[in-house]
Parts: sequence; structure tokens; C-alpha cells
Amino acid sequence: MLMKEHIAEQAKLAKTAALKLATATSEMKNAALLKMAQELISRQAEILAENALDIAAAIEKGTRTNMLDRLKLTPERISDMAEGLRQTAKLPDPIGIEDFHTVRPNGLKISRRRVPFGVIGIIYESRPNVTVDAAALCLKSGNACVLRGGSEAIRTNKKLVDILTDAAISAGLPKHSIEFIEIIDRDAVVAMCRLRKLIDVIIPRGGAGLISRVVEHSTVPVIETGTGVCHIYVDKAADSDMALKIAMNAKTSRPSVCNAMETLLVHKDVAAEFLPKMYQAMKAAKVELRGDELSRKICPEIIPATEEDWSTEYNDLILSVKIVENLDEAVAHINKYNTQHSDSIITNDAEAAKKFQAEVDAATVYVNASTRFTDGFEFGFGAEIGISTQKLHARGPMGLEALTTMKYFVNGDGQVR
Amino acid sequence: MLMKEHIAEQAKLAKTAALKLATATSEMKNAALLKMAQELISRQAEILAENALDIAAAIEKGTRTNMLDRLKLTPERISDMAEGLRQTAKLPDPIGIEDFHTVRPNGLKISRRRVPFGVIGIIYESRPNVTVDAAALCLKSGNACVLRGGSEAIRTNKKLVDILTDAAISAGLPKHSIEFIEIIDRDAVVAMCRLRKLIDVIIPRGGAGLISRVVEHSTVPVIETGTGVCHIYVDKAADSDMALKIAMNAKTSRPSVCNAMETLLVHKDVAAEFLPKMYQAMKAAKVELRGDELSRKICPEIIPATEEDWSTEYNDLILSVKIVENLDEAVAHINKYNTQHSDSIITNDAEAAKKFQAEVDAATVYVNASTRFTDGFEFGFGAEIGISTQKLHARGPMGLEALTTMKYFVNGDGQVR
Repeated sequence: MLMKEHIAEQAKLAKTAALKLATATSEMKNAALLKMAQELISRQAEILAENALDIAAAIEKGTRTNMLDRLKLTPERISDMAEGLRQTAKLPDPIGIEDFHTVRPNGLKISRRRVPFGVIGIIYESRPNVTVDAAALCLKSGNACVLRGGSEAIRTNKKLVDILTDAAISAGLPKHSIEFIEIIDRDAVVAMCRLRKLIDVIIPRGGAGLISRVVEHSTVPVIETGTGVCHIYVDKAADSDMALKIAMNAKTSRPSVCNAMETLLVHKDVAAEFLPKMYQAMKAAKVELRGDELSRKICPEIIPATEEDWSTEYNDLILSVKIVENLDEAVAHINKYNTQHSDSIITNDAEAAKKFQAEVDAATVYVNASTRFTDGFEFGFGAEIGISTQKLHARGPMGLEALTTMKYFVNGDGQVR
Repeated sequence: MLMKEHIAEQAKLAKTAALKLATATSEMKNAALLKMAQELISRQAEILAENALDIAAAIEKGTRTNMLDRLKLTPERISDMAEGLRQTAKLPDPIGIEDFHTVRPNGLKISRRRVPFGVIGIIYESRPNVTVDAAALCLKSGNACVLRGGSEAIRTNKKLVDILTDAAISAGLPKHSIEFIEIIDRDAVVAMCRLRKLIDVIIPRGGAGLISRVVEHSTVPVIETGTGVCHIYVDKAADSDMALKIAMNAKTSRPSVCNAMETLLVHKDVAAEFLPKMYQAMKAAKVELRGDELSRKICPEIIPATEEDWSTEYNDLILSVKIVENLDEAVAHINKYNTQHSDSIITNDAEAAKKFQAEVDAATVYVNASTRFTDGFEFGFGAEIGISTQKLHARGPMGLEALTTMKYFVNGDGQVR
């Protein structure tokens, strides 16, 4: 069978499963999630064996150490996955919730209720825990899913899906609730993105390259997630110690994630005092600084930044720095280069804070806090399928509700117009 | 200037206007809408003169009478447009409404509030009233817009936008709140659809050809609207008189619109009784019937339907008819061929109704009512930018809220993670 047809066939099977999942009770879905957790633990030897093969293949290909670490599973990591499943079982079920109801003058009863999308396509990169998280959140929200993980983790992912599927079946849910694409060819991504009416929404989770590939080719609606060129702007009315503490946290606490800071903007009036202190702290934390001309006048050790730096998500211990004339220039720079993820102002000036929050175009706009808080758990949502960086449908951390749509139920007794 | 650059330039101007519109007060926006209404009336002679030129050009091109009617403006139609503006002024302003608020254990205050998209691109076909409706709804929701109307109405649309813009300026709103694309070339649509970060969302309003062109090429998120292959299923437990009345209404009351019925499905047990009656009534209303083999056994006058008929939006006095074995076959047919717009079951069997509403995948699923009710005014929303046939962001009739997104405002006092 050709690749396209094979993937379409999997999506069709998922579509059939989706019809049943849409009407599955919360009890059934939760029982399946708990069964999945149990099976991951009891069959962990199988998972670790497949993972060892993936790791060996990755080492042979010369994969970098930090990528190997993302790929590697341990009993502890499997236990975390199982705990994630149990947590998802505890979350309230979004399906069926009515958020609008009216009886029209002609007697028509109109009710709008939350329903699953149907089939959700998720395209992601190396970490195998995404397989379990994504499948769990889709199942809890009554959706079937078509998963496409990174090629490095293919054996691990396949084993995880086998175990989850066995558990789903034994809990009475359809066999094809979780379809996993085994084709490694990159064109599989494009093929998935064009299955209109078979896949209802595509969620890419990964770097800028993957996201733009999906956006370019998809005819299925897309929720863009997870690219983060996040900014912190140190205003002239900033508390200098707070600014330093927040900047260090936003850059160094976990540089590989999307809510880490990539660019620091500093008001010109405080740059001479703030920048040298920050430079020393960043240097001590092994962060490479790349700055504009003005910043290099203050700290000549800073490497010159290129135009490309302003729009780069380093995901690494690198930071670009720019001195700005005023708040307006900071906002204009952010709106030009951000990925509409998370940006923060450090200031004690309430008016400046208000203006920054109103004018910066991002999912989450902070005052006096680290951008690192943009996260479903930190926001109290309990689980997260990703962080939307688009404005359509969902924005910011996406919990279960973001995996649902709505439907109008209209009941009459013969009304015509 | 090249076409692409010209359109990008217009979108940039709209983006600048959007920044100001986002913080405009309800009072300012409403004053602008009322001023627009007033100016449409006082400058109607200018509008009618430009419209006469469009009509003359359309006649010369041999345009069909029903298209000419859609294009033609009269003092009464201009008065309706003005009334639409006044109604929009009366609607509640969606901007700034908080729908989520929490204080986290670490003291972070998180608030989620409605904000405008920024710039909305609207691509539509011949009726000039869409220019006024779309501009009004975008303005009320704090958005700038980039409009691209049909070439037949270009002089009329341009004049309307000039008048609306003059009114906006005199009410203190930005000059570029409403940008109108004058380039007739069809590639202008594709150029618009690729202006990521300049246009925040594209809403195509028109036939299947326009929608699929936009979906195919757009890298800007799209809200698909307005294609309607709507079904009515006459169940074996249907009240035959009610079914006839609803079917006639759904097909003939306004066949050119998206919520009109295009396909009638009839349960085999009631077909012999129902179909001949319906055939006679449809024939009297000049509706051409195209049916499957079973329906033609009962009414041999019915023309044979082809596979293409089942997915065709006729927008005309044509109806496809099919006899089904049971409810499951009806649901399967609908889920295969519908545009996820509106479908209805006629039945007195509560279980059948419930199953139909649960399993049919459409924005609006009816029991014992005409599909013609899928409409913002009929639903009590007061205004409508279109009817979404996708599941992302908005589904069914879209009021002002569908033209907004949300933003997280997070306020701290130095929190780090």
C-alpha cells in the first residue's frame, strides 16, 4: 500500500473509534486510564528493552548527549508517565458541559455543549513521554488520536502505544483509539496534514522547522504550539535586584524549553548600572551573550548580535541583549520578533506595566515575573497538551477543554422559517 | 509596487490601526458606528452612482439576473445597512471581559481576558452589504480589517469603504481601520492568505471554490464558513405532515443560502407513503429531484442522481433524494457527505433523535425543525460574521465573540520558578 493510503487508512480506523469514544462515559474513560497506568508499570521491562534499542541506534548515529537524555527511559520516568495517567483520570471530564442555552420565541430549544473534535493528529519530536501524555489527554476528552513521533524513539513509542491499546481494549474502549504512524519518511507529516474530514485538527509539538512545515502544507486546521522567542524588558523603573533574579531564572533554570527567555531588552537609562551586573551573573552561569552596539559599548565582552539573533529560539545557554530608548521601542521590538508566546516587563511603574500588557501581542504577558511560568501545571490546569502560540481556538497553555469543540443541539416541534 | 508588496503594505497599515482599536473605548467605537450609519444615508447618492456603474459593467458581461439582484443597491437596502450599523452599536462589547481568574499559591495573579485578534482578513463575493456588516463587526470587536470583495462590486465597495473610513476618522478612530484591496487579480486572495503576523485570521465567505482555494494556500489561520450541504432525514417514526412542511421550507424558502437543504434522506419503511406526496409538492414548487435507484422505483419521474450529487451544494431549486435502510445508514451518509453545517432528523422517536444528534458531525443538529434556522439572528446572537463549518475556534453562527481571542495577564512581585 502507498504511504498516503496507509496513513489515510489509519485515520479512517481512528475516525470509527472516535464515534464510540465520543459517547464513552467518564467512568469508562477513567477506568481505561488507570488500567493504562497499571500496564505501563507491569510491562516496564518490555518498554525498557525497546528503549535500549532506540538508544543504541541513536548512539550509533552520533546523537548529542542532551538528545540521548530526552530519549532515555528509566523505571522512574515510566513511573512518572503512569502517575500522569492517574492524574488525567482525576481531571473533570469536559465533554457534555453546556455553556449556552436558550428557548427562542418560536419555541426552538437551543443548547450548545462541549463535544470531542473526533480525531486529533499530534506530530511531535523525541521525548517518548509525549506519546503517553497526548494519548491520555485525547482519550479523556473523548477523542481518538493519530500520533506521529520522532524517528529516534520509534521502537519505544510503538511499544508504549501497544501497551496503551491493550489496556484500552481491556477497559472496553475501541481498538483504534490510538493510531501510531510507523512510517519514518518525513513526507508522512505532509500526508497526515492533508487528511481533511478524517483528521479534525493537527497539533504539531516541536521546533520552528516542524511547525512551519505543518502550517505550510496543512489543509486540516492546525493549532500551533511551543515555539518561544520570549522577551524580558527591564524598564527604567525596574527594581534592579528583581530584574536580575528574574532574568537569571528565565534564562538558566531550563534553557531548552519554550518558555525560557531568549532576548533581554534594557531601558537605556538603567543599562549602565544593570548590564554589567547581569553580564557577570550570566557569565558565571555559562550563558553566551549576543548584543546590539549600545550594549557592547557598556560590556565590550558581549558578542555582536546579527539580525537573525532577534528571531532565534536558542533553546540553549545563549541570550541576545538590546538597549532600547523607551517602552515604545521595547514593545515594537517584541511585536516584531516574538512568537506570541510569553513576554515580561520588570517595572514598578504601574502605567508602564499596563501599557506593556495591553500592547504586547502574546498569549501571556507578565509583570514582574519570570516567563517560565507559562505552563499548564503552573497555571493550575492540571495537564497540558502544549502551549498555543496562535490566536485561533486556544491561546497559551492548553488543557483538556482545548481538545474539545462545541455543537448546537436544536430541538423543535415542527418549526419552519 | 508589486501586488504582494502592495497588499502587505495595506496589512501593515491595518496592523498599526489595530493597536489603537484594541484600546478604543466602547463609547468611541459605538459613536463611530452611528456616524457611519448617518454618513451612508447622507451620501447615498454617491453610493448609488457607483453601484449603477458596477451594474452596467455586470450587464455588459452578461451576468445572470439573480447575481445582478445581489449586486444592486437601492435607498431601502442602504437604509438596511445603516440599520445594521446601529444594531451593532447596541450590542454588548466583548472586549475586556474576564472569563478566568486565579491567584496561585506563589502569589501570581492570573487573569484571562477577551482581546481583539488584531487584523482580520475577510474575503467575500458579490453582495456589497457584506462590506458594511464585516467592517462594523470587526470595528465593534476592536479589530482592524482587510477586506477583499468580489470584482463585480468593486466600485460600490470602494465607495462604501471611503464613506465608512471618513466616518471612522471623524469619530477619532484610525484612518486604516478598514483597508480595502482594490486589486482584482485572483492571486490577491493567495497573497492575503500568506501574510502571517500581519493578518491574524482569514475568514472566507463564499462558495466551495473560494473556501478551498483559501484553505489550500493559507498559512494564516482560517475560519471556514458558509458552505452548506445540509440534510434532512425523515425517520420511520416521523410525522409525515411535519416532515413535508419542514422539507418544503428547508428547500424552497430561500434556496440560494447555505442553510437550505440539499439532500433528503427517507427511511425505507415510510418512503412509499411519503415520497410521492413530497414529489408532488416539490414539483409544484419547481424543484428538480435527483434520486437513487430505490427512490426512482417509487417515483420514476425522479432524475437519476450521480455520485457527485451527494456532495453538491446546489444553492438552487434542485434536491437529491435517497432511501436509507435505517438510522445508521442515514448518519453514515450524512457524515460522509455533509459540510458539517446543519442536519435535521424528523422523528417522534426520542431514542432515534438522541442518537442522531450524538452521532451526526455538524455544527448544528436539529430534531423536528428546518435547517433554515442556523443563523445568528435566529439564534438570538444579534449579528453574524458568517457560519463556521469548522471545529476550531468557532462553530455555527459566529457573533462578535468569535472575532476575539484571549490573553493571559499575569502579575507578580518577583516570582521565579
